[in-house]
Amino acid sequence: MNSSIIRYILGYILKIEGLLLLLPCLTALIYQEKEGVCFLAVSAICLLVGILITIKKPASFVFYQKEGCVATALSWIVMSIFGCLPFIFTGEIPSFADALFETVSGFTTTGGSILSDVEALSHCSILWRSFTHWIGGMGVLVFLLAIIPMSGGSHINLMRAESTGASVGKLVPKMRYTARILYIIYIGMSLLQFILLIAGNMPVFDALNTTFATAGTGGFGLKNSSLAGYSTYIQWVTTIFMILFGISFNTYYYLLYRNFKKAFSSEEVKYYFLIILSAITIIFIEILETTSGIWDALTQSSFQVASIITTTGFSTVDFNLWPQTAKMILLGLMFIGSCAGSTGGGIKVSRLILLVKTVAKELNSYIHPKSIRKIKVDKKPVEHEIVRTINVYLITFCLICAVSIFAISFDQKDFTTNFTAVAACINNIGPGFELVGPTENFGFFSPFSKYVLIFDMLAGRLELFPMLILFHPVIWKSALTQRPGKKGTKPFQA
Amino acid sequence: MNSSIIRYILGYILKIEGLLLLLPCLTALIYQEKEGVCFLAVSAICLLVGILITIKKPASFVFYQKEGCVATALSWIVMSIFGCLPFIFTGEIPSFADALFETVSGFTTTGGSILSDVEALSHCSILWRSFTHWIGGMGVLVFLLAIIPMSGGSHINLMRAESTGASVGKLVPKMRYTARILYIIYIGMSLLQFILLIAGNMPVFDALNTTFATAGTGGFGLKNSSLAGYSTYIQWVTTIFMILFGISFNTYYYLLYRNFKKAFSSEEVKYYFLIILSAITIIFIEILETTSGIWDALTQSSFQVASIITTTGFSTVDFNLWPQTAKMILLGLMFIGSCAGSTGGGIKVSRLILLVKTVAKELNSYIHPKSIRKIKVDKKPVEHEIVRTINVYLITFCLICAVSIFAISFDQKDFTTNFTAVAACINNIGPGFELVGPTENFGFFSPFSKYVLIFDMLAGRLELFPMLILFHPVIWKSALTQRPGKKGTKPFQA
Repeated sequence: MNSSIIRYILGYILKIEGLLLLLPCLTALIYQEKEGVCFLAVSAICLLVGILITIKKPASFVFYQKEGCVATALSWIVMSIFGCLPFIFTGEIPSFADALFETVSGFTTTGGSILSDVEALSHCSILWRSFTHWIGGMGVLVFLLAIIPMSGGSHINLMRAESTGASVGKLVPKMRYTARILYIIYIGMSLLQFILLIAGNMPVFDALNTTFATAGTGGFGLKNSSLAGYSTYIQWVTTIFMILFGISFNTYYYLLYRNFKKAFSSEEVKYYFLIILSAITIIFIEILETTSGIWDALTQSSFQVASIITTTGFSTVDFNLWPQTAKMILLGLMFIGSCAGSTGGGIKVSRLILLVKTVAKELNSYIHPKSIRKIKVDKKPVEHEIVRTINVYLITFCLICAVSIFAISFDQKDFTTNFTAVAACINNIGPGFELVGPTENFGFFSPFSKYVLIFDMLAGRLELFPMLILFHPVIWKSALTQRPGKKGTKPFQA
Repeated sequence: MNSSIIRYILGYILKIEGLLLLLPCLTALIYQEKEGVCFLAVSAICLLVGILITIKKPASFVFYQKEGCVATALSWIVMSIFGCLPFIFTGEIPSFADALFETVSGFTTTGGSILSDVEALSHCSILWRSFTHWIGGMGVLVFLLAIIPMSGGSHINLMRAESTGASVGKLVPKMRYTARILYIIYIGMSLLQFILLIAGNMPVFDALNTTFATAGTGGFGLKNSSLAGYSTYIQWVTTIFMILFGISFNTYYYLLYRNFKKAFSSEEVKYYFLIILSAITIIFIEILETTSGIWDALTQSSFQVASIITTTGFSTVDFNLWPQTAKMILLGLMFIGSCAGSTGGGIKVSRLILLVKTVAKELNSYIHPKSIRKIKVDKKPVEHEIVRTINVYLITFCLICAVSIFAISFDQKDFTTNFTAVAACINNIGPGFELVGPTENFGFFSPFSKYVLIFDMLAGRLELFPMLILFHPVIWKSALTQRPGKKGTKPFQA
């Protein structure tokens, strides 16, 4: 394994993180908060370590899928470990397990917190929490690809490991430009939401945080009541932008380049809206009785459906008190998730479409045993290999969920809490039901359970396998022996 | 579609059911119960309808997988509808939905009841309940194959639709002899358990019922406290026989023919015992504090693990009150289930082995992208097609579970109840947790929810697809147009 390139990437990630940490420093300066010193210190540490590590250039810039996965997984872990230091240094989250949980929850855009009182945090800490969502939403390695020129090597292996969804489309032949286009769309849309929130008289600091958390489909609120205290206008702007950030960014690329036919032909986006509309309708009917009117019921149901299917996790109401059917719809949406190639999590609508079509095809094969029709999506046949990969994805997903639920059951909490805590973490949502409901938090879990949930959040964000691969004995062996490039594996250049 | 052969099989099934109903009639005679008249009446109805339907022989005895599936699914439905009539006629279970639930729960060897007071039933009704377990355990169509000579046609299509597990092995070239061997082993083992129970001073009636429910891995008790009231000896005999009936019957065939190497080389059986031992150990440690001693804790943990993994569902203790970790192990066992080719339900150990190996193989492919090793079980490579089928099985299973949990959530019960009710039904176990825990019953569900759970029980017992196929438009179309044999599909003769 080419360990030197992994080291080099990790160093670069730390340098970037050092720079990103200057934003909370600036916030501290504006608000005259002494906590800013801690952020400045961590920023310096990140830059120093990053520079030291990247002094020696790697022997070869070529890496395979294996290196891509390991680099991605380690980047996210290292980034989270350094990113949680300010919380510890300021004393706002003194325990390491808690601080790491909060930071991983931020970067993975989960938004589940261990804090019972968010409002007690300093402004710079609140901003850093929200900012981690924005950074994690599009991905750090995508950012890396966008800014640093790496000669040779198949960058798609990095991009693939970090991007959400079944397949990574190259928008343009060069990965570097694809990464840039994605970031430009991301920044543009964030800016638009920010302006619309400001237009609704939201304070600048609140608007900035809300935009970061919406764009990354993260869900950290800056108030204990999440978005319940804001005006209906602000709730609707957030609803709409949550839904927009849950759509594949490829769609926006096609829209930008006026390829309307391609932009509007996506089966995934169609089903995404169909699911959203159906869910809103049923929940609207279910909660109509208990809310103060039609408009209120519509606002609440739309907001919560958008928040959960896009895996953001904001709340304007304690949906844990909703009727069981409404709760089951939300639980279903938690697993469905948003579109592939968006900033959202979950299993993804495109995967679900393929899974349902796989079952339908199997049923058909009982009726017409000799039929060899391929599954089609967007009127194009889907390769067997993709179908197979998605099947394996679901199996792995189920196994990780089962093991995680078992592991955290040692805390002796009820099944609904455990089940929805794992669902909310692996799907990067945030709140679940019962003890991890929207008005509660993850603070009561034991450190062991927190580490299990941290693993789930990272596994969910990185599409499972990059995290699992870290446990493979081969990786450990190569890490210990440090041979650059193994015999028998030839470089694959894209 | 060859509808006439399906009609013919249904007629035969009814004739067999008519004869089987004579056993509760005999019980009524012994105990001088007037309820026997109802059983006699239903027996007569079954025989009459069966004879009328089978008067006209079908034009062709050839059938495909499609007909095999439809015939199996309809057989089980028809058998359950007629089988529930005695309960309605005697007035012991007046509602149709309840009576059907109880009968389907019997035939599918689920063992979940809607009755709060089992002991109020007449002896003949209790016996019929337990007897349905025994009939359903090995399968009715297997019985049909064993006794009636059907010339031509691929009988394996019938057998495959009814047998449990991933693949149906032909023990001997002729399906008919395979079916007979299976029934001989089944009867022999049942007899052995019956004798051992009698030897422990269990009353004959109780021993007969317990044997029926154990052999079919059903779980209907004849006391409200299930097996809690019986001696430790009887509980241990039942524990051992539950575990034995959860092993593939092929193993016993090999043992009978002194092919010890083949009998003991099965990877599935090894893992089955490994899972059982691990589960017993953890639960033993977990409950040791709250039980009255080591021996008690061992008896309880062994009994409950055996009862749940084999999907029998007997109980000697209210395991709903156990610590959360112990409950999660039981929930895990519910899904794992017994060995393929046994009378038990669940996903099956062999499928689980293949699923885990699929994930391991996928991980390996990240490390060695060019490796094309096949997955091996019992040291033999497994065909891709089998792996694919199992993947699709899991997807279908997850989708049915999700839809069912949503459907029964309209009753506004808690999530744990709904989740475990569906798990207990689709895996053919019986008790779940909370409101469907071992001391509770399914009576409180609405008729709609009961029909959903009835579907789940049948789908679980018939390995999903035969039940799903009934909803396929092609089946409805052929049923309405009645064309014998469709163009373009040639008979496949085994």
